Amino acid sequence: MTGMPDTSASALVRACRREPVPHTPVWFMRQAGRSLPEYRALRANIPMLQACRTPELVVEITLQPVRRHGVDAAIFFSDIVVPIAAAGIELEIKPGVGPVIAKPFRSREDVDRLRPLLPEDVPDIAESVRTLVHELGDTPLIGFAGAPFTLASYLVEGGPSRHHDKTKALMYADEPTWHALLDRIAEVTLTFLRVQADAGASAVQLFDSWAGALSPAQYRRYVLPHSQKVLSGLADLGIPRIHFGVGTGDLLPLMGEAGADVLGVDWRVPLDEAARRVGPGYALQGNLDPAVVLAPWPIVEAAVLEVLDSAKDLPGHVFNLGHGVLPDADPEVFGRIVELVHRETAR
Amino acid sequence: MTGMPDTSASALVRACRREPVPHTPVWFMRQAGRSLPEYRALRANIPMLQACRTPELVVEITLQPVRRHGVDAAIFFSDIVVPIAAAGIELEIKPGVGPVIAKPFRSREDVDRLRPLLPEDVPDIAESVRTLVHELGDTPLIGFAGAPFTLASYLVEGGPSRHHDKTKALMYADEPTWHALLDRIAEVTLTFLRVQADAGASAVQLFDSWAGALSPAQYRRYVLPHSQKVLSGLADLGIPRIHFGVGTGDLLPLMGEAGADVLGVDWRVPLDEAARRVGPGYALQGNLDPAVVLAPWPIVEAAVLEVLDSAKDLPGHVFNLGHGVLPDADPEVFGRIVELVHRETAR
Repeated sequence: MTGMPDTSASALVRACRREPVPHTPVWFMRQAGRSLPEYRALRANIPMLQACRTPELVVEITLQPVRRHGVDAAIFFSDIVVPIAAAGIELEIKPGVGPVIAKPFRSREDVDRLRPLLPEDVPDIAESVRTLVHELGDTPLIGFAGAPFTLASYLVEGGPSRHHDKTKALMYADEPTWHALLDRIAEVTLTFLRVQADAGASAVQLFDSWAGALSPAQYRRYVLPHSQKVLSGLADLGIPRIHFGVGTGDLLPLMGEAGADVLGVDWRVPLDEAARRVGPGYALQGNLDPAVVLAPWPIVEAAVLEVLDSAKDLPGHVFNLGHGVLPDADPEVFGRIVELVHRETAR
Repeated sequence: MTGMPDTSASALVRACRREPVPHTPVWFMRQAGRSLPEYRALRANIPMLQACRTPELVVEITLQPVRRHGVDAAIFFSDIVVPIAAAGIELEIKPGVGPVIAKPFRSREDVDRLRPLLPEDVPDIAESVRTLVHELGDTPLIGFAGAPFTLASYLVEGGPSRHHDKTKALMYADEPTWHALLDRIAEVTLTFLRVQADAGASAVQLFDSWAGALSPAQYRRYVLPHSQKVLSGLADLGIPRIHFGVGTGDLLPLMGEAGADVLGVDWRVPLDEAARRVGPGYALQGNLDPAVVLAPWPIVEAAVLEVLDSAKDLPGHVFNLGHGVLPDADPEVFGRIVELVHRETAR
């Protein structure tokens, strides 16, 4: 689009494209949200889903950590269930619990309850992104969406789950229904991400938070085709696609195969080992243990340097946590981490 | 001890020792417990901790799955917190929640509340094991204990935890206290396992259920020395030591280094890949996804055969799930799995 700020020279976009960078870019998953007092003040008495659909709130919440920490990218503030709620699924995001689906999905008939998402369903999302892109200038905005498996798990379990047993039971017991469900979610997710990209997001991240519950064989058969549909459906946009999950050390090659440019790695796999596993052709994002941020600064500093050391031979590195910011984290530490990474990697 | 049945020719013990076996031995983590109606009948109105300290119940519950499924080993019925409760820590095992510690551990002073466990504290455990060994004859009994990190997480968090953030915060903020705590737990665990071995257990399994929350560097520095203390403290007994955790694909080499003979692998890493990672010198145990058991039989059968195929070049293989039996699993399926594995691997 014309008139949009150009972020192609930003450290984030260049690192994602495995191009030389002035310094390693830094952002933090869940940088916008619970750890910031200014966020908690703004969200007081406003339900999560309402906040996610109110442009002035989305814009302000997305910008808060950029102002405070000096990170190299903003991540669009939203919730993983926003697009499925917009596509007609009755749900609530309960504080301290997470999304609760009014009528969990268990059969072929349920699948039909999830209608396609149309851009007209989420004009507020496009509006928020446009405003953000303008406000952010040359700082890139990363679009946000949940991946088909993770969303399917919420829909089938009815909420957060430890073992995803109902989800896997459906996957095994009725494979055609499973694929129909994931295909439909993939369309919703793709639309949600394209709306953000069309409005000016410089990159997207597909969050498959629960994919780590799957073996490589399960992922390949039941999940990969659907995440591939999302990621390949974004290919023509030419913006970096980041693909992330927790506990996915053994899925990384398949998550790359699904069509990612950047693979998000949690702290369980050192980045150099992750790079060996996925082969060339990918930038990596990660992977400081979010719990390390709770430690005294010298420990944080040593752990950051350890991540940078494990990343020194990567073709592209985006510094991040290995999972989201913990609610109890002291926000002051994140600014220090940004400074440290910038200083240590200045070229 | 004299007069005890000899289990050294059993498929389980031979597989753990990487000796030729007549067929691949099978048992299931949590085979004793919630999935069996005869267990639920027996446990009605009896609190978990009380059940674990009542020999007639422990014996009966441990034997139930052996009778029903025809597995190649019994696993001693207990709970991970039994030894720390016996060593003076006030706690409760709440149904549907798990262990809840009355006063969570947060400081050096707290560590002193965990006194050493003496064999005299758990005469009932020795009694249960002796009775079981007699009843089981040539079917081996596997002793059971939780590993220092997992027990520390319960003590510090005060109960089950998703991110183990308080545990890691203590680990980072006060390393001497951390090591003092884990050292003390290691002693308790070692005593608890030696009591079981002395009373006739043919093998032991050290459950580090939560170790998968750690990176390899964290595990090596903060955990390995303590699990090593437990496992090396059993070396003189000459019985196989199985070492298991969930989501520990990248920790397997270190969990071997801690002194295991057998490494338990969850379903996230194919067994042949796990074998490459740990190198020679270990038998492997695993690794059917426990959720697969909820599927129709043809899917279960295919998944079992896939596990056996991935295990065909291992020096020793103990067939198991990759984590505990799910409460909703149909118990009938386990007997079919035992038969299938025996038939497919008969030599």
